[in-house]
Amino acid sequence: MRYKIILEYDGTHFEGWQSQPSGKGVQDHVEKALAAFNTEAPRTTVAGRTDTGVHALGQVISVDIERDIAPEKLCDALNAHLRHTPIVALHAEIVGPDFSARRDAKMRHYRYVVFCRKPRTALLAKRVWHMRHPLNISAMQTAAMDFLGQHDFTSFRSTACQSTRPVRSVDSFMIRLHDEEIWFEVSARAFLHHQVRNMVGTLVEIGRGQRAMDEIPSIIAAKDRSAAGLTAPPWGLYFVKVDY
Amino acid sequence: MRYKIILEYDGTHFEGWQSQPSGKGVQDHVEKALAAFNTEAPRTTVAGRTDTGVHALGQVISVDIERDIAPEKLCDALNAHLRHTPIVALHAEIVGPDFSARRDAKMRHYRYVVFCRKPRTALLAKRVWHMRHPLNISAMQTAAMDFLGQHDFTSFRSTACQSTRPVRSVDSFMIRLHDEEIWFEVSARAFLHHQVRNMVGTLVEIGRGQRAMDEIPSIIAAKDRSAAGLTAPPWGLYFVKVDY
Repeated sequence: MRYKIILEYDGTHFEGWQSQPSGKGVQDHVEKALAAFNTEAPRTTVAGRTDTGVHALGQVISVDIERDIAPEKLCDALNAHLRHTPIVALHAEIVGPDFSARRDAKMRHYRYVVFCRKPRTALLAKRVWHMRHPLNISAMQTAAMDFLGQHDFTSFRSTACQSTRPVRSVDSFMIRLHDEEIWFEVSARAFLHHQVRNMVGTLVEIGRGQRAMDEIPSIIAAKDRSAAGLTAPPWGLYFVKVDY
Repeated sequence: MRYKIILEYDGTHFEGWQSQPSGKGVQDHVEKALAAFNTEAPRTTVAGRTDTGVHALGQVISVDIERDIAPEKLCDALNAHLRHTPIVALHAEIVGPDFSARRDAKMRHYRYVVFCRKPRTALLAKRVWHMRHPLNISAMQTAAMDFLGQHDFTSFRSTACQSTRPVRSVDSFMIRLHDEEIWFEVSARAFLHHQVRNMVGTLVEIGRGQRAMDEIPSIIAAKDRSAAGLTAPPWGLYFVKVDY
């Protein structure tokens, strides 16, 4: 039986989603927990391979389990074995035998949170990117519109990105103020490695007045990583949800 | 010169506000930081002596400092010395020589956050009280109205409470839903020890249907701690602000 499972996790103390020789990938913990109450050692397929320090509110995995177990029971058993970790299964359901959490994803939604005030934050450390200086929200909103649509995002992908094609289509990019937090919400079918963090890092430079707000098209046209801004740190990034 | 300073802190790893032989009180860290850039060892007076694990968004202290230092510089110097702790100075100002953060407080505002859903929370551990079961918000709202006004709160104070008088006046009690969080916001000139956590613990029993929503007056009348509900855990409690 194939299952789809939605996971929430605090990425702070993991080396990203993917299984690591150190055993510190989120995947290592989830697969170990699944193996603890199944005779086989189930292998998971993930919607988004989050990096070290990146959080998830709605990560999705698909996994085959030999014995027939009710989805709610699977969720409870998984949570029982994950109880000493900051990983929680929110939901499980039975899906068709061809379903893939990765391949069938129609839209991936990310949120990046910048915390904007002079003093540090005592309560949101490792949850937000702290910015001492004010940011011009409307300049960033105007600039973000230039990311929409299909572009070659070479300037915004990690030089280590292994994707064969650098073209992606950004469907939505909204920037909103929530008290002292600025939320960057971006949606696309798929993203390149570091694409969200590089887009946010560049927008923040625009928000601080270090770049003009009409620079995005020329940065995209350059197809050169060094033309764009810095990579925003991982701890402000949340993998929010996936549409299928 | 006397200063008023507003502090934010994550109470998780401290043994409450008050100075401890272990050195693990928030006060110990703040006074050590103040002593690091002053010739004397300044002693602080605090608005609210928070317990172990309780957080502060707007704790207030008053403190005398011999040398004349601009408030903004005081804030920066204090933050520099507190940088390895989850304690942040948000604001400092010069006040009159008779000002006391404790004695002059006209109103203290607390928030208690319950996180209500079946699975645990990966991202808000030690920030909220997790409740697996749904709560009846309107029953709790109705019951909370019976706390308003002046009462003998003996039933809602810790048996270790050292206050000579058990009478307090609750001025406002609002219960609101924020997605999966329930915020209990309560204001009074002063509170007894554990009063907020005991009121919230009792309201949650009403929200779960374990007590009737009209029980509060008889619990107050009993003047007996055992008549009220359990003490809500400290990690859901925030000392929000003080009016002077």
